[in-house]
Amino acid sequence: MTTFVVVGGDAAGMSAASKAKRDDPELDVVVFERGEWVSYGACGLPYYVKGEIQSLEHLVSVTPEAFREERDIDLRTGHEVVAIDPDDRTVTAEHEGGETVQPYDRLLLATGSESVVPPIDGTELEGVYTLGSMSDGKELREYVARARDGDTLQQPDRGPACRYLEDCAGPVGIVGGGYIGVEMAEALAANGFEVNLFQRGERVLTGFSDATSEAVADHLRERDVVVHLGTDVQTLTGGDRVETVVTVDERIDVEMVLLGTGVRPRTALAEDAGIALGETGAIETDAYRETNVSDVYAAGDCAESAHVVTGEPVYVPLALTANRHGRAVGQTVTGKPTEGGAVAGTAAVKAFDIEAARTGILDHEAARAAGFDPVSETVTANSRAGYYPEGGTVTVTLTADRETGRILGASLVSEYGEGAVHRSHAIVAALTEAATVSDLENYDLAYAPPFNTTWDPVLVAAKVLSGTVR
Amino acid sequence: MTTFVVVGGDAAGMSAASKAKRDDPELDVVVFERGEWVSYGACGLPYYVKGEIQSLEHLVSVTPEAFREERDIDLRTGHEVVAIDPDDRTVTAEHEGGETVQPYDRLLLATGSESVVPPIDGTELEGVYTLGSMSDGKELREYVARARDGDTLQQPDRGPACRYLEDCAGPVGIVGGGYIGVEMAEALAANGFEVNLFQRGERVLTGFSDATSEAVADHLRERDVVVHLGTDVQTLTGGDRVETVVTVDERIDVEMVLLGTGVRPRTALAEDAGIALGETGAIETDAYRETNVSDVYAAGDCAESAHVVTGEPVYVPLALTANRHGRAVGQTVTGKPTEGGAVAGTAAVKAFDIEAARTGILDHEAARAAGFDPVSETVTANSRAGYYPEGGTVTVTLTADRETGRILGASLVSEYGEGAVHRSHAIVAALTEAATVSDLENYDLAYAPPFNTTWDPVLVAAKVLSGTVR
Repeated sequence: MTTFVVVGGDAAGMSAASKAKRDDPELDVVVFERGEWVSYGACGLPYYVKGEIQSLEHLVSVTPEAFREERDIDLRTGHEVVAIDPDDRTVTAEHEGGETVQPYDRLLLATGSESVVPPIDGTELEGVYTLGSMSDGKELREYVARARDGDTLQQPDRGPACRYLEDCAGPVGIVGGGYIGVEMAEALAANGFEVNLFQRGERVLTGFSDATSEAVADHLRERDVVVHLGTDVQTLTGGDRVETVVTVDERIDVEMVLLGTGVRPRTALAEDAGIALGETGAIETDAYRETNVSDVYAAGDCAESAHVVTGEPVYVPLALTANRHGRAVGQTVTGKPTEGGAVAGTAAVKAFDIEAARTGILDHEAARAAGFDPVSETVTANSRAGYYPEGGTVTVTLTADRETGRILGASLVSEYGEGAVHRSHAIVAALTEAATVSDLENYDLAYAPPFNTTWDPVLVAAKVLSGTVR
Repeated sequence: MTTFVVVGGDAAGMSAASKAKRDDPELDVVVFERGEWVSYGACGLPYYVKGEIQSLEHLVSVTPEAFREERDIDLRTGHEVVAIDPDDRTVTAEHEGGETVQPYDRLLLATGSESVVPPIDGTELEGVYTLGSMSDGKELREYVARARDGDTLQQPDRGPACRYLEDCAGPVGIVGGGYIGVEMAEALAANGFEVNLFQRGERVLTGFSDATSEAVADHLRERDVVVHLGTDVQTLTGGDRVETVVTVDERIDVEMVLLGTGVRPRTALAEDAGIALGETGAIETDAYRETNVSDVYAAGDCAESAHVVTGEPVYVPLALTANRHGRAVGQTVTGKPTEGGAVAGTAAVKAFDIEAARTGILDHEAARAAGFDPVSETVTANSRAGYYPEGGTVTVTLTADRETGRILGASLVSEYGEGAVHRSHAIVAALTEAATVSDLENYDLAYAPPFNTTWDPVLVAAKVLSGTVR
């Protein structure tokens, strides 16, 4: 019997395991997961902490029992793989009962990512959190519940964020203005915390356009989040618990700190086994997710991917890629070689009553490095017919190559519900197909007054940029 | 001085006039419009009749004064062009003061469409309406206002639709279950009318998928619209006013009837001048919208377009095409030949709390006629992460060619606000780029829990169909 072994039981791992077993029921599929949770939606953690999702179990799309019983997958939770021997074709897993040596014919590394803790003093203090795992989410939610009950923390003078709750919790700090930082600003402010968001660079959501970053920062401020831009956090101080965020200019009292300073791939296991990393620091693979070691694959947050515009390897650890590439590996190891496609670096974020999406290459320096001559235009247009009783605006930044007109990237922002995110889909399609702004300008997009203007804002952006390229 | 003459002052005509004048300020641009309204959003008329838009003026995007004064266009409302002489290169316009003979160097016919009145007895009765023009909209709104005041009509027993208003108006009939019929069902039911919708075929919105049609019909019924499917209206009877809709099976008392039985291109003026029509009955043009007569162009609802999937001429009279092709003609006549692109037959509709979109070739017979071997799949999936507190479902029907996997068309339906319409944009892009279902399956679409599932429903449909093609 052929054995397919998977290390890591989240999106990439369980997608691969499920697909492989479905396509080849004779295959022996063994999954090692060091924790107890599998196949969960980490992207939902901010909404769990916020209190909109009642139980961590709700984030689990398929339970361990269902994998075992319904899908006939040999899923071993609480098993940490500590070594791979590519010559013997075995992995060694440690667990409560001891150690298991498991032979494999095909192996998938789906070891995921871990939160980056910035190299500053004080991150080990109590009250300093990250949000990379289900247990992180659990701890944060418990902290929020305690703070709201007021049983463990002081209740200093309350800021304006307290309009959300009668009984307000104290000031907190978020280090990092990426999408975790922004989503958690909403989650914490909605629970009555006075939120200080510290962003090293001059704008939040640096992967998005300037226009999007400004719209989001403005909106965060409208919702009483104190946004500190261009602010390097130097140290966190306190006794046992964190008490102060120290920057170059200021000392800000806080009752907790969330570190939202990105993630890095978990690669130690692979490196120890002689599996090559790419320039991004994540595991290098070919288009089929196979590593430099034959029959060893890598997918999801531990691996790099090719960028759809540049063709170059990039590290974009996001859920859809993990699912897609995991599934592709499941097909490949059962005899149907499947690439699973490139990534566009597409991301979406909600912050209070605003939504934003980005895709492709927006940064002009990055575009030039890839051989393009980038040009961008930003337009703000009505999200629905001007006469329609509902509606807002969508701001679209579109970037293309001046010479060829090829679309390179886009960033969109609108009020929540006004369609910035779903509108980005057309641009993802366009840049994946290497379409030009003229092509996009002529797309026969759906129109009716409750949904857009005759020229959808995406088409307006293409029209305007079309006058700039060439 | 070169003169560009435009016949018809709505979307195509005013787009062409504005673009031509902007690109070549020296150009003499003359527009003849037989009515008083120009550049208006006819798509907004159902919402005006419903009462959500307070004034017809709100539907006007640019006023005649602004065209004249700000854009320096010689716009002559109340001027009906009655003849074109291609040899002399003149048009003859009749107006209150008499007749004008206007020379042209380039001519655009943007004469639009007119409502089709079905060939049955009784359509001339009072109380029988169409909704093709601003004056139609005005009459209907006045009717609704009168009926609601109860000053001119009987008030028979009220049906369940009366839950919308305390004071209810009587039963009305809508002939035709296309998007005008569906939108007007909402507009009239929301005003307390008991609405009978008569559809000749077995489903409403025949250009959409079966699944979409069923979802919309079910929802109309939930909102107390009486949907009569497979029902041929044979005659309308009454004294001066319409009183009864007579079908094969039934006689239904009504106080008014709206005919929503489609439109046809206005082509008499073109035909009289020897301008060729295509097989669709609309004016035939090349890719630059030039007719068989040199320097005479046609765009908008009077002209046919090429279909993006089949390349064949089709008649799809919709607003975006009129705007796009009009604008392209404006560029072409000022020295920058511009095609303006093909059409995908994309359409969107809202009906109460449901939204739907369609694009491309869905009908298997039409696909086979175009040389494809069509195969379709329909999936229903969560519109947002299952654990997210908001959300509904999106039902996606996707059609592709079995042999090549090329995407041919799609139809989507969801609760209003759950994104069926904006999600269709990605599929429009994909089919315009001649992408396959495998391509679509691998698009790196934006994902976050408030907006979709990790695999957006569009990707789920592609995944499922991907297993069927080849």
